[in-house]
Amino acid sequence: MQNYEKHILTTRQFDRASLILLFEEALEMERVLAGGGNDLLKGRILASLFFEPSTRTRFSFETAMLRLGGSVISNYSMATTSSVQKKETLFDTGKVVSRFADVIVMRHPEVGSVAELARGSRVPVINGGDGPAEHPSQALLDLYTIWKERKSLDGVVIGMVGDLKNGRVPHSQCDLLKHFDCSFVFVAPEALAMPRGIVEELRESGHEVRETEDFGEAIGEMDVIGMTRVQEERFESKEEYAKYAGVYVLGKGEMGRARTGAIVLHPLPRVDEISPEIDEDPRCRYFEQVSNGVAIRMALLARVLG
Amino acid sequence: MQNYEKHILTTRQFDRASLILLFEEALEMERVLAGGGNDLLKGRILASLFFEPSTRTRFSFETAMLRLGGSVISNYSMATTSSVQKKETLFDTGKVVSRFADVIVMRHPEVGSVAELARGSRVPVINGGDGPAEHPSQALLDLYTIWKERKSLDGVVIGMVGDLKNGRVPHSQCDLLKHFDCSFVFVAPEALAMPRGIVEELRESGHEVRETEDFGEAIGEMDVIGMTRVQEERFESKEEYAKYAGVYVLGKGEMGRARTGAIVLHPLPRVDEISPEIDEDPRCRYFEQVSNGVAIRMALLARVLG
Amino acid sequence: MQNYEKHILTTRQFDRASLILLFEEALEMERVLAGGGNDLLKGRILASLFFEPSTRTRFSFETAMLRLGGSVISNYSMATTSSVQKKETLFDTGKVVSRFADVIVMRHPEVGSVAELARGSRVPVINGGDGPAEHPSQALLDLYTIWKERKSLDGVVIGMVGDLKNGRVPHSQCDLLKHFDCSFVFVAPEALAMPRGIVEELRESGHEVRETEDFGEAIGEMDVIGMTRVQEERFESKEEYAKYAGVYVLGKGEMGRARTGAIVLHPLPRVDEISPEIDEDPRCRYFEQVSNGVAIRMALLARVLG
Repeated sequence: MQNYEKHILTTRQFDRASLILLFEEALEMERVLAGGGNDLLKGRILASLFFEPSTRTRFSFETAMLRLGGSVISNYSMATTSSVQKKETLFDTGKVVSRFADVIVMRHPEVGSVAELARGSRVPVINGGDGPAEHPSQALLDLYTIWKERKSLDGVVIGMVGDLKNGRVPHSQCDLLKHFDCSFVFVAPEALAMPRGIVEELRESGHEVRETEDFGEAIGEMDVIGMTRVQEERFESKEEYAKYAGVYVLGKGEMGRARTGAIVLHPLPRVDEISPEIDEDPRCRYFEQVSNGVAIRMALLARVLG
Repeated sequence: MQNYEKHILTTRQFDRASLILLFEEALEMERVLAGGGNDLLKGRILASLFFEPSTRTRFSFETAMLRLGGSVISNYSMATTSSVQKKETLFDTGKVVSRFADVIVMRHPEVGSVAELARGSRVPVINGGDGPAEHPSQALLDLYTIWKERKSLDGVVIGMVGDLKNGRVPHSQCDLLKHFDCSFVFVAPEALAMPRGIVEELRESGHEVRETEDFGEAIGEMDVIGMTRVQEERFESKEEYAKYAGVYVLGKGEMGRARTGAIVLHPLPRVDEISPEIDEDPRCRYFEQVSNGVAIRMALLARVLG
Repeated sequence: MQNYEKHILTTRQFDRASLILLFEEALEMERVLAGGGNDLLKGRILASLFFEPSTRTRFSFETAMLRLGGSVISNYSMATTSSVQKKETLFDTGKVVSRFADVIVMRHPEVGSVAELARGSRVPVINGGDGPAEHPSQALLDLYTIWKERKSLDGVVIGMVGDLKNGRVPHSQCDLLKHFDCSFVFVAPEALAMPRGIVEELRESGHEVRETEDFGEAIGEMDVIGMTRVQEERFESKEEYAKYAGVYVLGKGEMGRARTGAIVLHPLPRVDEISPEIDEDPRCRYFEQVSNGVAIRMALLARVLG
């Protein structure tokens, strides 16, 4: 990591070397998990501050801390309660909570909120999602899942499918994947295409990027099939939505056209963009991603707590 | 246990032999508690998923896990929050949470919900109450309380008093007690009588069942006085309710007519169906039931986690 | 402690000797903290019952328990949920929760509520704030902060500034400080002056008390500058409020008039009565008070759990 040595706030603080190191540490953490956990962080406390609900992310961090022998103090749905009502600044919250805990993970609906808390904190802060901006541990576990499968991120054809305009997940993935020699296939309705800035940055740094609306045609090229949800409310009209609803859905038919060695990712929760009928297909990794997320977060906690 | 070897979903999965074995295990757990707990489940994590509030049941399971050296991740009032908002199926929730925890206890307002979660789960699931259907650990602790007192469940006269029509507790108790040679005295207003199906099943399996509306006359026959609440809203009119209000109440007068060796049970919380003036009567077991519940849940956790 | 040997319910149960003993125990706990915690309370469970939100106080008690190797079961925002809905008495809640936990901390909006819970409890109960009445651990950590600084509470000039009429904190502080040979300077608008009863009690027990509205003139006399918030809604009119708004605010200018050896206290959260520009002034102790609160609560937990 180049900057933010103490905190984990953004995908931008990682480079190629620090990513690979982190993945190797996460792999080691999987061995720890297989052995039933350890006592590396015994006596250390994680403060889990969730100003908006996200059971999955909260459970993942808390599990990671407990598996390393640490403890947790937890406050979800703080948003409407307590000192927040009394208008305490996040800077002060950081000052105070870092007097209790040895490390803080925070999720908050506002961009920049976690960095503001970190500014006040005496202990490391990990961004658990600050609104539409960043959710670095999710992007890290996505890449880790690919890396584990392929033993590398170079030479991989990364497909991203669905709403690439509004999704925090595909944006953060690109921010990390740009450090590797992979190529990209973006499949989205024109109205939900990947932002131009991201596409240009990838191309300028030498990556091949192909964009299409036709999932059925493109799926066969992908080593990684990264699914995201297409939400009706993102479209201007029901008619517009109807053109795409069901098109960016992964079922048995689509899997028949996918590569033998491809893997399917999804940040979960899914609604109907992945049919449960393919859950048993060995190429699907979306539930295994949940386990990988625990390993990545164990590696992050171990790293920031030295 | 005959079926559901992995999960604890229903009282129906227990037979006479497995019940007595469980009670002996719970008795052993009381010795563990007297010694300040142990480390049997050190490194194991319980996920406590409460989709409706039940502090008593949640605390009981969490205490049981902690007393055995395990840890807890907890999410109550999930109902209105998080991935549930995004309409994740309980099957997927089971898939995901079982990637974090080693065992799950869940409470949910809908019948069959816990079984649906268990279908997706890779780890054992314990039913903490699925709406009006089942709440097996409560029924198990009720029987355990009787078994501890009498050293047997055979030959015991079981009284059940109050709303026997709508109460989940008396129904589940009958489901377990039918494996033993006990007899029954059901005391309820006609409109709140024990369902015919349950009475017939008990009689067909050779149990004596007497039904009456007269608590004062019947209390003297009972070895076990199982109280439940009679709620005004169950009656068609205030006049109808007024006939029974105060009739199925246990106070000093009633205790004077009860057997010397009788014991009083109540699932709690009580409102006014048991007068605090009898709390010190040595026959009252309703607060001791709370402790027995911890022991039973420790035995269940130890059993499903092998 | 004279009374309430088992529970910590009120500042009134402490005398001079028991306070100094507690402060010495808290100092020992700071050494434990510096060493990364210990296992003094391993296997013991704290039930954290918060019927109104107070993240800071809850985190402080839970951290204290975890640092001593204990575990926590926690229920905040119980107010609108669970058995409370079913109108269980606090006496019964005490009966029940003390079957789970080894010690209980409770916060509740009603005066006397914690004492009522304690009446039912088989285990020690610590008052985490019962409405406008008491919040003893806050007052204890305030005094501990002064005692640590001055090595004594005798001969100290205690300043209290702001809303001294409605604030639970200054009242509780006076209740404890009266055991020491300190003198007082109360700075408040007339409408928010310290209640006559408290002033008279202090004077009758031989303490010098000076009252003024002029913060700028009085600050130079204080060894301890105890700030509290002045809330607009306490005044009869906006005009009345405008006279005081900004007057009882601590900034660089005021600190220039304060003694070199003075210390600044605030119970937090602050809104604007202390300017962040003075946070780095070495005389400010309001964030260190948070750490002192953990030490005091560790000492209280260790004391009541023997």
